[in-house]
Amino acid sequence: MISRLNERILATGAPIVVGLDPMLGFIPGQIIENAFAQYGETLEGAAEAVWQFNRGIVDAVCDLVPAVKPQIAMYEQFGIPGLAAFSRTLDYCHEKGLLVIGDVKRGDIGSTSAAYAAGHLGKVKVGNHVFAPFDEDFATVNPYLGSDGVKPFIDACKENGKGIFVLVKTSNPSSGEFQDRLIDGKPLYELVGKMVDEWGADCMDGDFSDVGAVVGATYPEMGRVLRNIMPKACILVPGYGAQGGSGKDLIPFFRKDGLGAIVNSSRGIIAAWKQEKYAAYGAEAYADASRAAVIAMREDIQNALSL
Amino acid sequence: MISRLNERILATGAPIVVGLDPMLGFIPGQIIENAFAQYGETLEGAAEAVWQFNRGIVDAVCDLVPAVKPQIAMYEQFGIPGLAAFSRTLDYCHEKGLLVIGDVKRGDIGSTSAAYAAGHLGKVKVGNHVFAPFDEDFATVNPYLGSDGVKPFIDACKENGKGIFVLVKTSNPSSGEFQDRLIDGKPLYELVGKMVDEWGADCMDGDFSDVGAVVGATYPEMGRVLRNIMPKACILVPGYGAQGGSGKDLIPFFRKDGLGAIVNSSRGIIAAWKQEKYAAYGAEAYADASRAAVIAMREDIQNALSL
Repeated sequence: MISRLNERILATGAPIVVGLDPMLGFIPGQIIENAFAQYGETLEGAAEAVWQFNRGIVDAVCDLVPAVKPQIAMYEQFGIPGLAAFSRTLDYCHEKGLLVIGDVKRGDIGSTSAAYAAGHLGKVKVGNHVFAPFDEDFATVNPYLGSDGVKPFIDACKENGKGIFVLVKTSNPSSGEFQDRLIDGKPLYELVGKMVDEWGADCMDGDFSDVGAVVGATYPEMGRVLRNIMPKACILVPGYGAQGGSGKDLIPFFRKDGLGAIVNSSRGIIAAWKQEKYAAYGAEAYADASRAAVIAMREDIQNALSL
Repeated sequence: MISRLNERILATGAPIVVGLDPMLGFIPGQIIENAFAQYGETLEGAAEAVWQFNRGIVDAVCDLVPAVKPQIAMYEQFGIPGLAAFSRTLDYCHEKGLLVIGDVKRGDIGSTSAAYAAGHLGKVKVGNHVFAPFDEDFATVNPYLGSDGVKPFIDACKENGKGIFVLVKTSNPSSGEFQDRLIDGKPLYELVGKMVDEWGADCMDGDFSDVGAVVGATYPEMGRVLRNIMPKACILVPGYGAQGGSGKDLIPFFRKDGLGAIVNSSRGIIAAWKQEKYAAYGAEAYADASRAAVIAMREDIQNALSL
C-alpha cells in the first residue's frame, strides 16, 4: 500500500494529506440549514451536514492530493449517525480515487487489536460471507500496549495490502510527558521508533515499509533523529498549519529524494474559508477556499524541500 | 460516579465487571440462526446475534454485579451495525440498573480527545438541542499522548458526573516492552500511575477519585506498588480467568477494606457454556452458565480477600 501512496505523491507533487476533521463550527450556514431542514437539529442532522461539507471539500481537492485522513473522533462524537457519515465519507473518497488514512489511534491487547484491525483494515466473516466494514487503506495505531497490541494490525496489513502509522512522537504540547522521558539515555519515542523499524522489516512494499510512523511537525529536531532511526518508515506528519508547524519545519522528515513523509493539515484546509486570507471566497465557495489552501500548502512544502 | 460504583460493589458483594466482548464463536447456534434468518449472513445479522446474546447474559447477571464492560472493538469489527448493537447494549444495561464501563481506550491530542469525551461521556450540541450519544458511565483512556490528551476526558467527568480508567499497566504479555522500561530508576507504569494520582486529585467522589486506572491481574506485584502510588484510584483489573489471573492474584489490587478494585472477566463469564465445567447447561441455557460463572468468580474473590 505504501508504494501506491508514494506513486500518488510523485504524481501530484503534493506530499499532503487533507485532514477531514469537521467540527460544526467549520461548516457554512447554508449546509447546516439544509441538513437541519431535512433531519432536524438531531445527530442525524449534524451527520448529514458533516457529510455534505466533506463531499464539497473532497470534490474540490481530489485531483490535488494523494490522500485524506478523517479523524474518527469528530464523527464518533455524533454517535451512530456520525459514524455512518465517517463510513460514507471513506467510500466517497475511494470513489474519487483518494487513499484514506483512518485516524483511529486504536490499540489494545492482541485479540482486541485483531478485532479493530479486522474492522478498519481487514475483513470479518459472517456465516459464509465476508465483509470489509470500514476498509480504510491505512490506520493510525497507538503503541502503548507493545508488540502484541500492534502485530494484529501488521498481520491485517500483510493479508489485505494495507498500511499503518504508529504513534511515535505526537504533535501536542504535552506529548513529552511520557514520550520524551529517557530510557537508557534515549527518549521513549526513539525506543518506539526502533520498534517501528523492526515491526516494519518484513512488510516492505518497494523502498518503504507498510509500517509507518506519526511524528509531529511541531518537533522537527526529533523528526531528524527519527528519520534516521526509521529509514524504511513513511512518516505521517500532523501539526502543520493550525498547530504551529511551517514548511521549513518539515525538511527533516523527508528523505533527500523528497519522499518519506506526508504532511497533514486539517483545519488549515477544511476551514480555510474562515481565515482572513481566504475570506473573499465566502461561505458559498468554502470548497474553493480549501482548494486554494491546498495549493498554497503545496507551494510552501515544495519551496522548503528545494532549499 | 465512583461512589455509585462502590455502593453497588458493597451491595452485591461482587467487585466484578462482566466483559461484554462477544465473538461470534461464543454465541449459541440458535441465536445465530435466528439472527441470520431475520437479517441474512450480513453485518446486520452478526450485530443482531451479538445483541440477542448480550441481552440474555445481562438478564441473567444484572442482579449479581455492579457493572458491565463492553469492549467496543468487538462491535466496531462489524461496522455501523456492530456499533449500533454496542449502543443498544449500553442502553439496555442502563435499563437493567447496571453501570457501564465503555472499554474504548481512546486518547488523542486535546481537541480530538474532547470529541471522544463528548461522544462517550459527555454531550454534543446540535443547533439548540443537546445529545449524549453513547453515554457510558466510565470510559478507558490511553495515556500515551500525555496530560492534554487525558484532561478533556477528566473535564467531561466533572461536567457530567462520569469516570475514567487510565491504562497504566496492561494485562497482555508484551505490555512490558514500553510500560516496564525504567525512567530515573522507576518503570514507566509507575510514572503513569503518579500522573493518574495527580490527575485525580480534584475529581474526588467520596473516598475515591473519578480518575481510576487499569492494571492487569497478570501482574500482581506491580499491582501492589501501584495500589500505594495511587491511593485514591479505583483499579480496573482485567486479565482474570482466561488471561491467567486467579483470585489470590487479586489481593494486592484491593485496599484492606475490600474496596479499591473491580475485576473484569469476559470470556470466562460470557462463554462459560463452552467450558467443560459448565457444559451441562448446554447452548440453550448459556446465560445460566454465565450466571453460575459469576457466582463462582464472586466466591473465588471473596475467599481470596478474606485470607
